[in-house]
Amino acid sequence: MKKIVILGSTGSIGENALKIVEALPGRFEVVGLAANTNAVRLAEQAKQLDVKSVVLGSQAGDDALCELVSRPDVDLVVCAMVGMAALRPVLAAIAAGHDVALATKEVLVSAGELVMRERARQGVALLPIDSEHSAIFQCLQSATNRLPWCVGNAGSAEHQLGNEKIKDAELVFGAPGIALEPTIRRLILTASGGPFANRPDVDFATVTVVDALNHPRWKMGPKVTVDSATMMNKGLEILEARWLFDVPVEKIDALVHPESVVHSLVEFEDATVLSQLGVPDMRLAIQYAMTWPERVGNGTLPRLDLAQLGGLTFRAPDEGRFPCLRLAREAALAGGTMPAVMNAANEVAVGAFLGGRLPFTGIWRVIGRVMAAHTVCACEDLETVVEADAWARRAAEEEIGL
Amino acid sequence: MKKIVILGSTGSIGENALKIVEALPGRFEVVGLAANTNAVRLAEQAKQLDVKSVVLGSQAGDDALCELVSRPDVDLVVCAMVGMAALRPVLAAIAAGHDVALATKEVLVSAGELVMRERARQGVALLPIDSEHSAIFQCLQSATNRLPWCVGNAGSAEHQLGNEKIKDAELVFGAPGIALEPTIRRLILTASGGPFANRPDVDFATVTVVDALNHPRWKMGPKVTVDSATMMNKGLEILEARWLFDVPVEKIDALVHPESVVHSLVEFEDATVLSQLGVPDMRLAIQYAMTWPERVGNGTLPRLDLAQLGGLTFRAPDEGRFPCLRLAREAALAGGTMPAVMNAANEVAVGAFLGGRLPFTGIWRVIGRVMAAHTVCACEDLETVVEADAWARRAAEEEIGL
Repeated sequence: MKKIVILGSTGSIGENALKIVEALPGRFEVVGLAANTNAVRLAEQAKQLDVKSVVLGSQAGDDALCELVSRPDVDLVVCAMVGMAALRPVLAAIAAGHDVALATKEVLVSAGELVMRERARQGVALLPIDSEHSAIFQCLQSATNRLPWCVGNAGSAEHQLGNEKIKDAELVFGAPGIALEPTIRRLILTASGGPFANRPDVDFATVTVVDALNHPRWKMGPKVTVDSATMMNKGLEILEARWLFDVPVEKIDALVHPESVVHSLVEFEDATVLSQLGVPDMRLAIQYAMTWPERVGNGTLPRLDLAQLGGLTFRAPDEGRFPCLRLAREAALAGGTMPAVMNAANEVAVGAFLGGRLPFTGIWRVIGRVMAAHTVCACEDLETVVEADAWARRAAEEEIGL
Repeated sequence: MKKIVILGSTGSIGENALKIVEALPGRFEVVGLAANTNAVRLAEQAKQLDVKSVVLGSQAGDDALCELVSRPDVDLVVCAMVGMAALRPVLAAIAAGHDVALATKEVLVSAGELVMRERARQGVALLPIDSEHSAIFQCLQSATNRLPWCVGNAGSAEHQLGNEKIKDAELVFGAPGIALEPTIRRLILTASGGPFANRPDVDFATVTVVDALNHPRWKMGPKVTVDSATMMNKGLEILEARWLFDVPVEKIDALVHPESVVHSLVEFEDATVLSQLGVPDMRLAIQYAMTWPERVGNGTLPRLDLAQLGGLTFRAPDEGRFPCLRLAREAALAGGTMPAVMNAANEVAVGAFLGGRLPFTGIWRVIGRVMAAHTVCACEDLETVVEADAWARRAAEEEIGL
């Protein structure tokens, strides 16, 4: 039995993780649950699964979450918390030597360099729950005999920490004794494109909140839906992929694919493309992250039927029309604290747009100005990231208030 | 330098294998070349590459081919010969302990059980050159930590040979010490569909040779083009896949995909689908088979651009309309000598159709009758296969002559 802790157990990803636990009896023991505010549902979950350790984050605070994930009897921490609050618990889980299945975008967007360095130092697994990153993770396992976190050879610090030997930079896949060179040409993140990528006629100067929230495919929270409309959602995922797979941002592309069946692709230097496909259902990626390195049968998951679907379509994103993609690339190239600053400025700007204080086009204007005003620092520790995040929020508020 | 022998070097696959040798300097040393009849081109190739050992099969015979592939200084035999003549040399290469990159369909269709048993006994690699099987091979490498030949667990004899321990049934992929259970739900072979799959209006009773040879996408030889029109081509590939991956035929499907960009797919029990894609160019699969387990950059290969392509389409094949698919399944289920009989009857029937001696619908009628008349024998050795093949050719000729 794999002993798991779920942070954010009452949100949609947390609830779906519990559905996986239920669908695969005898495989997981839930030893800890945490939610932010929904005490009633948290108590129900704890009772149903007989979980002894339960934390209500809004009352107990960060330290209690860090203590929960640091318990020695944990095998895997599923992190489905919202926002930057997840960063300290994720670092605590890694420091305790536990594998982490990660849904919280902000952790890798804002502190990817730091988190991946700690991951490498501890030799633990960081398993993506985002369907795009899960797809790339699965494709990369067949590509080289390195673990997917080390395939990119982007030259970041994580493979060389002084004299320290990084455990999983060693070969673990493929025929023993044969060193396979990484040969990734491109990671290709698919994007539904949101409400506007398929409508080049839409003038962004006139876009209202109602327009931006009218997503053609999914009902999601307002922040994520606006990120989808600006394509910042894909920009954030480019940043996640850059750190998760240690691949330079120049090798990461986005591809508009409205059906969201091809979850993402990897192109290799031999012109081969590998891809992972499936019905758009978050449980697929959640389960893979939870069962990795095993792949476990689950009859409750919906099956893909390409013949019934009939067709799949693809289109290049228009980076001129969607400046958030460019901003994300710039943040990745600047490195250090810049991605955290971009992420924080975006959160504030989207909030202001939803509150009627900023036009749609103001979102990328504000982010661009805050980034331009920021002096990049190296991402040495948690405090640096938290400070940069706070600075960017203030700077964005000021920019909007002008 | 990997030392290779190419059988069938003057055919299209052989010539493309030599293009790969040329495109990847320093990686391969061609130590032997063989062709059937084209002595002029064979001599040119030998001169250009300074190859000392050259065999003209039509003059030197089988023994010379077997001797060529049995040389101790060979690392890989690329088999691109046409037809059953490839069987003895392939078995000789395996017996000599050499890896084989295999393009000749007949070898696995007619003698797959025998060939795979010998492969397992010798612990050598059998690398598919067919784009569909190469795609599945690549997807399976990420699926379990077994080598792709052993993932299916179809229960064939190859994993248990008395007290003999089969080398690569042991774990070689994935985290050491973790046994991953195979969880394949389906292998999905994509099919262009030929000239008729996309035209349900065509009445097969009236199909002429000209109609059948009018393939919408590719210019191939007449035998293969007719196989594509009857979809026997896909039936043969189902048989190849059944043996190559040790997967029961009930788990192997065909999917009509006219663009031929998705080369094939694997569906797992966790509802995930992995796929390999690429521009339809045989060099991709040839190179992968030649460089395996490495994946090597090659700028001369055409790159896939899904955005430019725009869309991909899929449709279930109509097994009622294309009885050859059903016949291939029946042959796989019967096992033993039946696949060899089906393959031989098909060759004779297609020849008779091309010669105007048999209507289009007669192709599957003849195959079905020959199969019905055959008493299956176990596939113990080469002679059994050769005898069954010869019997089926005679039986088919008699059937057509009636």
